[in-house]
Amino acid sequence: MERLFDEELTKLKEKLLRMAALVEDSIELAIEALKTQKEEPGCEVLKREHDVNLLDVEIDETCLRLLALRQPMAGDLRFVTSAMKIGVELERMGDLAVNIVERAEELRTMPLLKPLIDIPRMAQMAQAMVRDSIKSFITRDDALAQDVLKRDEDVDHLNDQIFRELLTYMIEDPSTIKRAVGLLLVGRHLERIADHATNVGEDVIYIVRGKTIKHYLDRKPFAGCEK
Amino acid sequence: MERLFDEELTKLKEKLLRMAALVEDSIELAIEALKTQKEEPGCEVLKREHDVNLLDVEIDETCLRLLALRQPMAGDLRFVTSAMKIGVELERMGDLAVNIVERAEELRTMPLLKPLIDIPRMAQMAQAMVRDSIKSFITRDDALAQDVLKRDEDVDHLNDQIFRELLTYMIEDPSTIKRAVGLLLVGRHLERIADHATNVGEDVIYIVRGKTIKHYLDRKPFAGCEK
Repeated sequence: MERLFDEELTKLKEKLLRMAALVEDSIELAIEALKTQKEEPGCEVLKREHDVNLLDVEIDETCLRLLALRQPMAGDLRFVTSAMKIGVELERMGDLAVNIVERAEELRTMPLLKPLIDIPRMAQMAQAMVRDSIKSFITRDDALAQDVLKRDEDVDHLNDQIFRELLTYMIEDPSTIKRAVGLLLVGRHLERIADHATNVGEDVIYIVRGKTIKHYLDRKPFAGCEK
Repeated sequence: MERLFDEELTKLKEKLLRMAALVEDSIELAIEALKTQKEEPGCEVLKREHDVNLLDVEIDETCLRLLALRQPMAGDLRFVTSAMKIGVELERMGDLAVNIVERAEELRTMPLLKPLIDIPRMAQMAQAMVRDSIKSFITRDDALAQDVLKRDEDVDHLNDQIFRELLTYMIEDPSTIKRAVGLLLVGRHLERIADHATNVGEDVIYIVRGKTIKHYLDRKPFAGCEK
């Protein structure tokens, strides 16, 4: 029984790592589609999305089997239920990579607004966050998970900067509006991928410390709201 | 033991219903903030977000207790693990209502671009989807869950329509750009709320039928991709 449980647990970890690698790859290919204005990298993302979806279902079933196989104790129970949630997070990240490809497809026949520098940089940051968030889960590495959370702020700042720059483009030259809106949405998609990696990081801290730090950052009330 | 399990299950359902009611309320208040350009409805959303976050943590703990209390069988096991995921979905919807308030706050001091008709309509559709998705989960109502999935398409169409209209505004009059981009993002936030309700609907169909229909809608490949 114990051995079966461990075998299933190992399989589960392998599947999460495979899923994360596919998502990372998809982000890179989606940005390639955007930069090169070629269709092929986008098609590759669609293929990967199919595999990501299959893995999501498989992870769910593996987790249900693990829960049914034996009643896991506190730490293992949390690990398995978190793995179910993390499968969902990865699947959503895969969807967002497809969303980037959709934007790339809309922009494919228009001249590039400008050489892309910040968006690929943001994509690389997001990719590293995906990788490290899953790694921190597999190895129960609290410090690495913390680091992922910290990097999310950098991604948010970069996205705000991109947003303001694109707004300036549009205002100065309305002929850029369609293209700028497309890129602005790509920035949002990447920011949301980073958010999902952050959710994974929060789950890791939860299972390591045994208490949640979700919502630990209380939102600042707007100036007009009383405390 | 059986009685304890049933009691916990009842508490769990009550919490999900309370959470859904808070989210529904938050969407309405966020749109009110956008329409009236007053701060107070936005502050009310922030208060509700706090309660939504607390409920998310409580639901998670209730589910872990239910899993630890006894090894639930197939149907119950699925119900409890789905409830954990649905808590996450509701929490994200609450975040999106706060995002709408953030957009309302940015737009508060600018003249309204136009009387808002479609966005409040979209908000109402999203609210109903939140309500019905949770109702379908509590009552394991496959048909209602299906209906939620169908309505998601209507929301998507309405959002595309709003998007195109706002793009036209911007191109015709660049002085509207900032406001139009703000509203365009509100449309996205609402669309994503509807997506989360759809995720809940998919989970319901999963527990009722015992098999997943997630990813049942295979994405159409782009024209340039081979099959």
